[in-house]
Amino acid sequence: MQHHTISALVENSAGVLSQVSRLFSRKGYNIESLAVGVTDDPAISRITIIMIGDDLAAKQMISQFRKLRPVIYVQEMDAEQSVHRELLLVKVKTETKDARDEVIQISNIFRANIIDVSRGALTLSITGDTEKNNALIKLLEEFGILELARTGIVALERGPYTIHDENK
Amino acid sequence: MQHHTISALVENSAGVLSQVSRLFSRKGYNIESLAVGVTDDPAISRITIIMIGDDLAAKQMISQFRKLRPVIYVQEMDAEQSVHRELLLVKVKTETKDARDEVIQISNIFRANIIDVSRGALTLSITGDTEKNNALIKLLEEFGILELARTGIVALERGPYTIHDENK
Repeated sequence: MQHHTISALVENSAGVLSQVSRLFSRKGYNIESLAVGVTDDPAISRITIIMIGDDLAAKQMISQFRKLRPVIYVQEMDAEQSVHRELLLVKVKTETKDARDEVIQISNIFRANIIDVSRGALTLSITGDTEKNNALIKLLEEFGILELARTGIVALERGPYTIHDENK
Repeated sequence: MQHHTISALVENSAGVLSQVSRLFSRKGYNIESLAVGVTDDPAISRITIIMIGDDLAAKQMISQFRKLRPVIYVQEMDAEQSVHRELLLVKVKTETKDARDEVIQISNIFRANIIDVSRGALTLSITGDTEKNNALIKLLEEFGILELARTGIVALERGPYTIHDENK
């Protein structure tokens, strides 16, 4: 079972997300992560989905995905030929000065940003691939993670190519 | 019409995303952005939704949202009392040395990271609120944006409080 990254351009309309997620759940595929945001054209959104399954399953999902009415382009992103990033916000318990010092140190090593400070907690923001972010979470666990939010992966092809080239 | 940020903890199961997005589309509310990722508990995902609508509409959506079976907690995030961030990847045309120099300069000013370089294009990664990211996109438009992907907003409450405290 592999992770597949599927990137799609869709019309920015109510209902498109529900169509896409229904397609995956109907087939019993859990979406590991999903990120959606508008593109530079406000009428068009880009959806990035990470699904777990074998190659055949991914191929079938992409082919069905292409058939949805509000879908413009769909592409599977090759892991080697693309850059993958996700954003993680994580709030850590820092009740002592020592704990706070250590968390700040870890944050610096990971090039995370401290975006909120309060008595008892620090909130960090970090951008990386899933492995890097998981490594940070693991290190912070001993201090006590109060809560976290991750965006899900977004990906772009390396080089000057775009999703439009792939679909030509 | 206002932006409302809704944060929810849900069971990490096939179908939950489709239930949530169907709820919004049935009411005719377009989701401006949606981000979903697992939390530190792999059985639980956090969904962050930005919806546009008046206060009453947001209140009604949250109340319906809470009734969905796989939903554990739902909270509206107060703009002042929370940190909002999104990740943007953007690929810019840089066909001349001058264009490349200028894009690198803009990237430095915005504290973006250059994550891919090729003949003819640079890919930048930036984390910020929507306004900061939109400002960067606007500046890069004159060079030619080849493509972009944004994750949608994730948000955490400021201070040591968590979504669980709100719902107690």
